[in-house]
Amino acid sequence: MTRDGKMRLGLSMRYLGYHVAAWRHPSVPADGALSFAHFLNTARKAEAAHFDMVFFADGLGIRANDNPKGSLARDMRNAELEPLTLLAALAATTRQIGLVATASTTYNEPFHIARKYASIDHISGGRAGWNVVTSWSDEEAQNFNRSETLAYADRYERADEFVDVVRALWNSWEDDAFVRDKASGLFYDEARLHVPDHKGKHFRVRGPLNSARTPQGQPVIVQAGASEAGRRLAARCADVVYSNAHDLQSAQDYYFDLKRRLAAHGREPDDLLIMPGIVPFVAATRQEAQDKYDELQELIHPLSGLAALYGQMGDLSGYPLDGPVPDPSDKRPGNITSIANNLLEVARAENLSIRQLYQRVASTFGVRLLIGTAADIADEMEEWFRNDAADGFNICPPILPAGMDDMSDFLVPELRRRGLFRTRYEGTTLRANLGLKPNVFKRS
Amino acid sequence: MTRDGKMRLGLSMRYLGYHVAAWRHPSVPADGALSFAHFLNTARKAEAAHFDMVFFADGLGIRANDNPKGSLARDMRNAELEPLTLLAALAATTRQIGLVATASTTYNEPFHIARKYASIDHISGGRAGWNVVTSWSDEEAQNFNRSETLAYADRYERADEFVDVVRALWNSWEDDAFVRDKASGLFYDEARLHVPDHKGKHFRVRGPLNSARTPQGQPVIVQAGASEAGRRLAARCADVVYSNAHDLQSAQDYYFDLKRRLAAHGREPDDLLIMPGIVPFVAATRQEAQDKYDELQELIHPLSGLAALYGQMGDLSGYPLDGPVPDPSDKRPGNITSIANNLLEVARAENLSIRQLYQRVASTFGVRLLIGTAADIADEMEEWFRNDAADGFNICPPILPAGMDDMSDFLVPELRRRGLFRTRYEGTTLRANLGLKPNVFKRS
Repeated sequence: MTRDGKMRLGLSMRYLGYHVAAWRHPSVPADGALSFAHFLNTARKAEAAHFDMVFFADGLGIRANDNPKGSLARDMRNAELEPLTLLAALAATTRQIGLVATASTTYNEPFHIARKYASIDHISGGRAGWNVVTSWSDEEAQNFNRSETLAYADRYERADEFVDVVRALWNSWEDDAFVRDKASGLFYDEARLHVPDHKGKHFRVRGPLNSARTPQGQPVIVQAGASEAGRRLAARCADVVYSNAHDLQSAQDYYFDLKRRLAAHGREPDDLLIMPGIVPFVAATRQEAQDKYDELQELIHPLSGLAALYGQMGDLSGYPLDGPVPDPSDKRPGNITSIANNLLEVARAENLSIRQLYQRVASTFGVRLLIGTAADIADEMEEWFRNDAADGFNICPPILPAGMDDMSDFLVPELRRRGLFRTRYEGTTLRANLGLKPNVFKRS
Repeated sequence: MTRDGKMRLGLSMRYLGYHVAAWRHPSVPADGALSFAHFLNTARKAEAAHFDMVFFADGLGIRANDNPKGSLARDMRNAELEPLTLLAALAATTRQIGLVATASTTYNEPFHIARKYASIDHISGGRAGWNVVTSWSDEEAQNFNRSETLAYADRYERADEFVDVVRALWNSWEDDAFVRDKASGLFYDEARLHVPDHKGKHFRVRGPLNSARTPQGQPVIVQAGASEAGRRLAARCADVVYSNAHDLQSAQDYYFDLKRRLAAHGREPDDLLIMPGIVPFVAATRQEAQDKYDELQELIHPLSGLAALYGQMGDLSGYPLDGPVPDPSDKRPGNITSIANNLLEVARAENLSIRQLYQRVASTFGVRLLIGTAADIADEMEEWFRNDAADGFNICPPILPAGMDDMSDFLVPELRRRGLFRTRYEGTTLRANLGLKPNVFKRS
């Protein structure tokens, strides 16, 4: 829970929603992922609801494989706007909402990243955030001169140094370095310029950044560290963490562990906000909410469903969809018997068909599913919020923009009735609205 | 001259104008290079005047040195918005004007560049252009893990392959590849996907790009190739060339040479537009135009002036500014005696003081200077246009936004009176307004 007793809310708006069949829903613009108008429309709805921020996840290429054959051509995750250009376009067309996009530390250079986010922070008047990722897939590696992804430890070692370089570049100039005195002709005060001159294992970057300190001092840093190295990075430098948990206990364990790590870096528990993801299906009645869910579940193409099982169960496309789940065979890729057995146990215990199993696995890309009235969902959120499992939530509507309308119509009013969510923006920057301390210039 | 007899006009709007003292002018917002409002204001003026495009030059860092000491702190070229984020923000807030920004092939990866320009082309509805540069300075190299710039030949070899990869990525999908058929669940037609799978000397990039073909088919490619390798690259793949010439004969030579090279690539002369840069000081009378120029010349800080001489003459800060230019000494950096002698000859022949010499060298960053009434300047432009020296001009106003107002108030009406410039946009894309052929999908 936050110090002010208000939840932070983010809207995750990649693609067309967080349900695998979102694009087939009648209300969804199927070409929306390439339409700026679609994103602007959705972002403005989130801004009208006073959400803290919108967020774009990202991958540097198409990460899904065509297994089983034909599944990729049924997948909406094939074409989209690039998130930093999209963020800049939204910076110029929204006024108050925070703007967070993902950029990889494995396939970028710190100077570019420091410069682009600084620029978006200037354009937006202090609303930019960088979601730091290390890029896990071989598909992305193959777009950047490699055949496979970097090893986990190497990725995080590079990420650690990358973030340090970016932050040093953001602090190239003190806040008042640019005096721009027309009378004397002095443009900046040399004493307030600090050239990073970084020389490390992965990067040599002299600097300074050709940008002033930004309206936020530094853009907000977001992370989604679940692994040990990810948690270490988050504890050291993230302002916000997007987490993924499906039950209160594991969410609390994660929350406790991450907050506990902050002190070692001279940070206080409130300096890092933890926001688990949720996919809410909300309506006036439980039945209507369930109907919304069922409607989308029926729209999952069998090949998309089988693709969601492929990594764990191998190619099941030769079996009847409404028949039983077959025993694992040698057709399964890799060494994943335990996961497959796990899924198989679920299928056996509940007597699920292949279709029923993939509907369970494929639906919301692994993000926590909540179905019910606004009161039902607010109950769940409030329980996590009041019991040290969350400082807010990263809301991943199943479809867009209608899923955002449901937030505005149902969930946000309920949260406000409970005093859990703002009715106006408190500040002009993302950092201020999140309730984070101002970023004060310190020499690195 | 173009086939339709109309000039193409671009507005170069980096920093605060193309005069070294622009930021000190009373009308110029000294913090404008970090202000999106400033750029939007200026771009909208250019759009209202029906310019083909606005253009942002760029360097990946501060390229000037602090020679003589203290000169860098008088230089406005220290902090600015990043051009791709700026372009995306302008894409969302303008409606018709073309949007061109620079990106380096030496310090980027093709996948990022293909993706970002494609995204801006989608956001803008087909108005994006990429100015391809190879980055010559050591200062930029030092921001990207190197101590000095790549050798010239290596830069262009990499640039050649880089552009090919980008264009192959832009053609990953045929125009109608994304069928998005909600009823059948088919998102794209596999037969219309073409995975580049590029394996070259500098790059291995599998693709496909996670973006559809763009409204222009492909963004416009701009180049400023003056050297042999630059001309080869331009002839092979540029749609527009920004050139720099100070007299008709050399402009004609360049024009003839570049147009002549096109046939070898199956291209026609009209497939490449050549637009020399000009810095126009224009007013109702010649005297007023001259006064505008003189006012700015007086605002050149001596240290900025001496910095402009430093590379050729060494450090002259120990000499009286209004005294004679001293003979070259061993203090000059590097092996540049011939250039120094050249400048010295000019100074001697015209009996110039140090101040008078630097005022001549420092003023407009080497871009061709034109001072006069609209008729005077239109005469010059028309002469070049009608005599195979230019298809249009890249206009670099000395100060912004006032220099753009001068174009709208004086120069554009004069060009229109002569039938040399449009009164409305002909098409909806940059490519169409430039009169270039549509980019038709071809398998690479």
